Amino acid sequence: MNIDNLQSRFYSLRHNRFFELFVVGVILFSALVIGAKTYDIPDNVLMIIGWLDVGITLFFLIEVSVRFIGEPQKRNFFKNAWNVFDTLIVIVSLIPVEDSELALVGRLIRIFRVLRMVSIVPELRLLLNSLLKALPQLGYVILLMFIIFYIYAAVGASFFASINATLWGDISISMLTLFRVMTFEDWTDVMYETMAVYSFSWIYYLSFIFLTTFAFLNMVIGIVVNVMEEEHAIEAREQALADGEPTIQDLSNQIKELKEILKNR
Amino acid sequence: MNIDNLQSRFYSLRHNRFFELFVVGVILFSALVIGAKTYDIPDNVLMIIGWLDVGITLFFLIEVSVRFIGEPQKRNFFKNAWNVFDTLIVIVSLIPVEDSELALVGRLIRIFRVLRMVSIVPELRLLLNSLLKALPQLGYVILLMFIIFYIYAAVGASFFASINATLWGDISISMLTLFRVMTFEDWTDVMYETMAVYSFSWIYYLSFIFLTTFAFLNMVIGIVVNVMEEEHAIEAREQALADGEPTIQDLSNQIKELKEILKNR
Amino acid sequence: MNIDNLQSRFYSLRHNRFFELFVVGVILFSALVIGAKTYDIPDNVLMIIGWLDVGITLFFLIEVSVRFIGEPQKRNFFKNAWNVFDTLIVIVSLIPVEDSELALVGRLIRIFRVLRMVSIVPELRLLLNSLLKALPQLGYVILLMFIIFYIYAAVGASFFASINATLWGDISISMLTLFRVMTFEDWTDVMYETMAVYSFSWIYYLSFIFLTTFAFLNMVIGIVVNVMEEEHAIEAREQALADGEPTIQDLSNQIKELKEILKNR
Amino acid sequence: MNIDNLQSRFYSLRHNRFFELFVVGVILFSALVIGAKTYDIPDNVLMIIGWLDVGITLFFLIEVSVRFIGEPQKRNFFKNAWNVFDTLIVIVSLIPVEDSELALVGRLIRIFRVLRMVSIVPELRLLLNSLLKALPQLGYVILLMFIIFYIYAAVGASFFASINATLWGDISISMLTLFRVMTFEDWTDVMYETMAVYSFSWIYYLSFIFLTTFAFLNMVIGIVVNVMEEEHAIEAREQALADGEPTIQDLSNQIKELKEILKNR
Repeated sequence: MNIDNLQSRFYSLRHNRFFELFVVGVILFSALVIGAKTYDIPDNVLMIIGWLDVGITLFFLIEVSVRFIGEPQKRNFFKNAWNVFDTLIVIVSLIPVEDSELALVGRLIRIFRVLRMVSIVPELRLLLNSLLKALPQLGYVILLMFIIFYIYAAVGASFFASINATLWGDISISMLTLFRVMTFEDWTDVMYETMAVYSFSWIYYLSFIFLTTFAFLNMVIGIVVNVMEEEHAIEAREQALADGEPTIQDLSNQIKELKEILKNR
Repeated sequence: MNIDNLQSRFYSLRHNRFFELFVVGVILFSALVIGAKTYDIPDNVLMIIGWLDVGITLFFLIEVSVRFIGEPQKRNFFKNAWNVFDTLIVIVSLIPVEDSELALVGRLIRIFRVLRMVSIVPELRLLLNSLLKALPQLGYVILLMFIIFYIYAAVGASFFASINATLWGDISISMLTLFRVMTFEDWTDVMYETMAVYSFSWIYYLSFIFLTTFAFLNMVIGIVVNVMEEEHAIEAREQALADGEPTIQDLSNQIKELKEILKNR
Repeated sequence: MNIDNLQSRFYSLRHNRFFELFVVGVILFSALVIGAKTYDIPDNVLMIIGWLDVGITLFFLIEVSVRFIGEPQKRNFFKNAWNVFDTLIVIVSLIPVEDSELALVGRLIRIFRVLRMVSIVPELRLLLNSLLKALPQLGYVILLMFIIFYIYAAVGASFFASINATLWGDISISMLTLFRVMTFEDWTDVMYETMAVYSFSWIYYLSFIFLTTFAFLNMVIGIVVNVMEEEHAIEAREQALADGEPTIQDLSNQIKELKEILKNR
Repeated sequence: MNIDNLQSRFYSLRHNRFFELFVVGVILFSALVIGAKTYDIPDNVLMIIGWLDVGITLFFLIEVSVRFIGEPQKRNFFKNAWNVFDTLIVIVSLIPVEDSELALVGRLIRIFRVLRMVSIVPELRLLLNSLLKALPQLGYVILLMFIIFYIYAAVGASFFASINATLWGDISISMLTLFRVMTFEDWTDVMYETMAVYSFSWIYYLSFIFLTTFAFLNMVIGIVVNVMEEEHAIEAREQALADGEPTIQDLSNQIKELKEILKNR
């Protein structure tokens, strides 16, 4: 059996619908195993789970190998970010981590294996890509929001640090406190505390809430308008192409031809 | 009186506007009776309510029977999910439940009778159907959100279980806690507790909030765009059909005919 | 000076821009007086405020009289709901209320005089009308939401009343508690309390939150789509009327005429 | 070297991309210095930061001078609100503030220097302008909301002041409490307290929440519709101008010409 044969066989295996479903099944099963571990379970069950874990790791190793060998051009394999992610997860989970310190890291990697769900199911991959694509459009709104946060945090840390160091100790803690205020989480407790010293500090909180709410609203509206426009553009293009229907331009040309016919007679 | 006669009579009774209004009235009355029972009421009133309850049960039995007999083709009756729902509610509420254990179940069924409001009023049925129809479109966003929840819950249960077992004891409790964080309900209390041990755990909470908020926003925008597109499609179709107005295609054809006339002369 | 003369004079006074601005000024001043009263103020200032109050009452009496006399047809005056509102406020505030029991009612009426702002400024009147006009469209969504609330409240009052009577005592208190859960206000405290007895009661809360959030979202989207469609309709109508621009129908007719000309030659 | 030469040199320096980037860098650095000051830092580092501060102040003085000298027409310089803002920040930060009382003001000015980021980066300036431009459209909704707040605050201060003076002491405190209720922040605690005295006060809170939520929703929808319409208008204008494509009007004219040709033969 030569290499080419193996490659084409693995290629077809990899694009086989049942193989894909089986991989999804194994990922779901690994997710269940992770979930089960968080419950109090007897030692013998724990041992079985340990063996299942090894089995899942080996299966994932085989699956990535199948995908790699099945790839006609090996270079393209690592150009796909999802393939890199899959390979990394598989390689790192091969490292034996029995040490108590690294055990947590090992557990984290096992959990991230559930994310392979996204790399396998095309619809989820598409959805995540479209979510990520929406982010850069919001670049400047996020920058503006960060400036608002930074300035308010600097003011907060300068004036309120002596009142409550847990909330306003330094600029990073202050930013966390401001995020809390933005989510309206017990924000009045924070405010009443500083109002006891600076009675006009409600201006600080209210202006912050108005600014961030307004900027957030604009961000949301920005996304809505963007999405709608894209939809309109797609629709318009589709309509234009739809079964070569004549445009006003075509009509105009036809009338010009008519004139030519009339003149030339 | 033959059967057919009875069927057509019941059919017209069932589609009678006044009969419908009377059924709505009885449902409203049964809702009031349910509400009244939750107050402290004297024993004799309770007894009257008991009799009213029997009356309502019997009336609903008659009403469903009328609808069943009035149906020209008996098979279609149970093809309608609402008819099945109505029949089930009526049959189950016929079972006498005096036993203290089943009494709660009996009470639940009496409460669900209020839902019959939806099965009677066509506008509500339409509204609920359109709500349910919107769900499957969101399928993959909900799946993605579930994966986010599951991964974060697994991480939470692995790292924070020793800090607070009530909130992070196992993966299902962790998911409930994460839902709480998503609704911003005292989420800082949860965060400050884990930050005392893992000082960088704010990254966990903030990334979770950003991810879920962003996914939620996308879901909402997805629904808005979907609804709008449907409206546009309906509008476009209506416009196209509106009193046979000529399209650009028709104009083009007319001009072609003109050319033919000119050429053939 | 005859009556007609007085009527036309008052009519022009009433539609005078400066008179309107002066009335707005008096309303704003009465609002400030109401605000001032809530502070601790010395007795002599309180006395002055008392006299100002009488002055405002008299001015409002005169203003409504001017509007009434200025009305060409007296019948139409009370057909306008805002005029009825204004007259009622003025008449009721004439009743002397020194009695400690009625004093609160008197104070309420003085506060409602600020609402006259809306009846005077046309833009606010328009805005409020459009807000009110949007309500009936939502009729069935609100009805559906009420049914959801009622059913959940009935279930809550039946099962949880023995756990915490303050929150779940009867069906009306339960509805208030559910509204609190819907606003995410310390809803986990409510949930944890009932989960101690019925460990699966989280299903009750989560399903309620999902149902109401979903219904609320649909309501919002419904309003957005409605508003947009109205805007589109207005736009389309304007475009159609815009300087008699030819439609495709007109073009078609012109081409038909051309054909007639060609045929008849 | 004559003045004109200097002006044109500074003009080109000011519009130099690298100079702009360097200014942005210094602003970012000044932001970091402000952040660093909020941490506990040793005295010698504090001294270095003090010197850096002087350096930043001097650099900003030079930068504004360059911009002023580089301006061809000195009058226009102060017509730009951002230039006025920059100059003020620079001048005020030159005043030596060692005094403990004014030290806080000095710190505030140093923080506001971060806002210069917005005045330097054109995209942020554009974004902020568009945010500010959206505000006046909302004028009447904000006025209506203020009237709602004022009336409810007046009612609250009149009835609940004796129950809890911290929350309802006077009309301004009441407005702050109502804003808290609007953000759903522990609003039930506020409600339960007043319900103990006036058992029907839940009507007050619920009606307030409904009114403000509804007005807020309308505001949001108003912005969305406005933004969308602007986008549509821009799109329509662009489409119309796109490569002189014929309109229906043009077609109609062409057909008229055809008729003329046919008639004149």
